[in-house]
Amino acid sequence: MSSSLPTSIDEDFFANKAILITGGCGFIGSNLGRRLVSAGARVELLDCLVPEQGGCWRNIADYRKRVRIHEVDLRDAAPSDLLSIVAGKDYIFNLAGQTSHLDSMENPPVDLAFNCAAQLALLEACRKTRERARVVFASTRQIYGRPQYLPVDEKHPLQPVDINGIHKVAAENYHLLYSKVHGLPCTVLRLTNTIGPGMRIRDARQTFLGVWMRQLLEGQPIDVWNGEQVRDFTDVEDAVDAMLLAAALPQAHGRVFNLGGPCAIRLLDLAALLIEVHGNGSQSVRPFPEDRRRIDIGDYHADFSRIRLELGWEPRISLRETLVRTLAYYEENLGHYL
Amino acid sequence: MSSSLPTSIDEDFFANKAILITGGCGFIGSNLGRRLVSAGARVELLDCLVPEQGGCWRNIADYRKRVRIHEVDLRDAAPSDLLSIVAGKDYIFNLAGQTSHLDSMENPPVDLAFNCAAQLALLEACRKTRERARVVFASTRQIYGRPQYLPVDEKHPLQPVDINGIHKVAAENYHLLYSKVHGLPCTVLRLTNTIGPGMRIRDARQTFLGVWMRQLLEGQPIDVWNGEQVRDFTDVEDAVDAMLLAAALPQAHGRVFNLGGPCAIRLLDLAALLIEVHGNGSQSVRPFPEDRRRIDIGDYHADFSRIRLELGWEPRISLRETLVRTLAYYEENLGHYL
Repeated sequence: MSSSLPTSIDEDFFANKAILITGGCGFIGSNLGRRLVSAGARVELLDCLVPEQGGCWRNIADYRKRVRIHEVDLRDAAPSDLLSIVAGKDYIFNLAGQTSHLDSMENPPVDLAFNCAAQLALLEACRKTRERARVVFASTRQIYGRPQYLPVDEKHPLQPVDINGIHKVAAENYHLLYSKVHGLPCTVLRLTNTIGPGMRIRDARQTFLGVWMRQLLEGQPIDVWNGEQVRDFTDVEDAVDAMLLAAALPQAHGRVFNLGGPCAIRLLDLAALLIEVHGNGSQSVRPFPEDRRRIDIGDYHADFSRIRLELGWEPRISLRETLVRTLAYYEENLGHYL
Repeated sequence: MSSSLPTSIDEDFFANKAILITGGCGFIGSNLGRRLVSAGARVELLDCLVPEQGGCWRNIADYRKRVRIHEVDLRDAAPSDLLSIVAGKDYIFNLAGQTSHLDSMENPPVDLAFNCAAQLALLEACRKTRERARVVFASTRQIYGRPQYLPVDEKHPLQPVDINGIHKVAAENYHLLYSKVHGLPCTVLRLTNTIGPGMRIRDARQTFLGVWMRQLLEGQPIDVWNGEQVRDFTDVEDAVDAMLLAAALPQAHGRVFNLGGPCAIRLLDLAALLIEVHGNGSQSVRPFPEDRRRIDIGDYHADFSRIRLELGWEPRISLRETLVRTLAYYEENLGHYL
C-alpha cells in the first residue's frame, strides 16, 4: 500500500490546508480523506449517505473523529448552506455522484439530480464565494462509450451509451466551463474501474468486482457475464495519488486526464487471478443479461500517457497486490458491507 | 414563401396523422404547426407559455381553433398527464427548450430543468407507451462551441462554451440513446440561427436578429456588437421542411443533421442588408459586452451536405427574401411582440 504522497509533492504540501471532499464517506472519498488527514490537512467530508450510494460510516471509522462531517444531499441543499460549506476551502475534491449505469437507465431523473443538479449546486456555490478553491472532479471512462480504438486516449469521441455517461459528460463540461469562464481552477480525472478497501460489494453499483469478491468470500461461484471483455483497474491508492497531484500542480488546471491501470486483462483471466489469490473458488460464466448487454461498452483500457507526461502520475500498485489487500480487507470487514 | 411540403414527400403524407409539437406556440413550433394543419394533420401543441420563453398566443392566432392545445410545463408535468398526451401520436416534434445562452449562465439550474429534466420527462413518457412515435428534436449549433474549422460538419468536436450548449449536448444524447436502446426512432437537427415571422423580438433570447428588427422598426440604430462575426441563417420555412423530411424519411432515424443557410455573412454586412431592405435605418457598432464576449463562439457557418445527401434537404429561400417577409410581418404585428 502506497502511504506517502506522490513523489513530486512535498510530504507536507497539504498540511493545514482546508479541504472539502464531496462523496467523502464513499469508497474513493474515504481513502482520499484518510490520506489527507495523515498529511495534516483540515478535512471536511460531505456525503448524503443514502443507501443506494457509496457512502457509509464504516469507511471512515478509523478517522471519523479527526474530520468534520456534513451530512448533506447536494441535490436539495439550501444554497446558503452550500455557500458556507465551500467558503474558505483551499481544495475541493468533488467525488459525489451516482455511479450505477443500470440505475441511470431505470430512473433517469434520479441520475440527473445526482450527477447534474447536484454538481451545478456545488459549482454555483463556488462561483458565488469570492475565493477560488482548486477543484478536482471524478469523471468516468463511461463517457467514451464503445471504444473506437484501444487504448483510449482523451481525444476519443465522447459517445456515452447510457444516461449515467450522458450526465457525466455534462458534469465534466460544467467543471471545464467554470474553470474557463469563472476562473475556478478545475481538473477532470476520467477514472476507469477503481478497486480497494471501501468499495461497494453489496451490489454492482460501483464495480462488478465488488460483487465478485463478495461471492468468493461467501463461497459462491463468481458470476461472470461473457468474460471476454478486456478492462483495466486502478488501485484506489493510485487514484488518490492522481487526485492529490491534480489538485497541487498548477499545470493540471482546466485539463482533462485519463487514469488507467498497470495492465489490461480479460475478465475470465481476472476471475482466475482472483480465485488464485484467494486460494480457492470457482467461476460460472453466462451470457450478458439483456438489460446489461444493451449498454455494455465491449473492451476498454485507457491510454494514460497524458497524465504521466504532464503530472508525473502512473499506477504503481500491481493488480495482484490490489486484489490481495482488498480481499484481506473484506475478509476482516465483510459483515459491515453486506 | 414555401407553402408546399418538401418535394420528396407526397402532399398528403401527414394527412390525418396524429402530431404533437412541444414548444408548439413558439417561433418554429407555430410555423411547423401551421404547415401541418394545412396538410390535414391532427395537430396538438404543447407549450408552457412562460414569458421568458418563445411561446405566445399571437403565433397561432390564425389557426388556434384547428388544433388542440396543452398548456403544460414539461419541467413539472405529472407523468400520467404526459403519458396520455404522447399516447397514440405518430410524430412528435420536440421543440420545447430554453434557448438563451446568457440566461443559462446566470441561472444554470433553470436551464437544466428546461433542457434536461423536461426532455427526460417527455422521452420517459414515450418509452412507457407501447407505441413508438417518430421524434424530431431541435438541437443547436451552439453545442460545437468555437469552431475549429469552417464550415462546421457533424463530426466537429462538441465543445460547448455555455451551460445551454452543455445541456443541449445532453438532450441530443438522450434522443440518440432512446433511439438506440429503447427503439424510439429519433432524429436530431442542429439548427443554426433561424429567422422568420413569430421569432422573439422583445430581446435576444432566441436570436439577436429579432432585436435588430425591432430597433429598425422603432427607428433606432441597430446595435451591432463587434460585427466581424460570420453567421448563417435559415428561413423558418426551410427549417420546417427539414423537420418534416426528418420525421417522414426512415433513413433519418437515429441520425444527426446540421441545418444551414443559403449563405454565410458578416454581421456588419447583414445589418447593411437589413437597412437596405427596410429602406432606411442605421447601425451602431460597439465592442462585445463582457458577459457576452466570454461565451461568444467567433465565426460559424454550417456544412449541411449530410442532410442534402441523405434527405434531399437544402435551404431554398434567400436571405434577402427572408428579411423582406419577416420585416413585413413585424411591420404589421409589432405591437403583439413587444
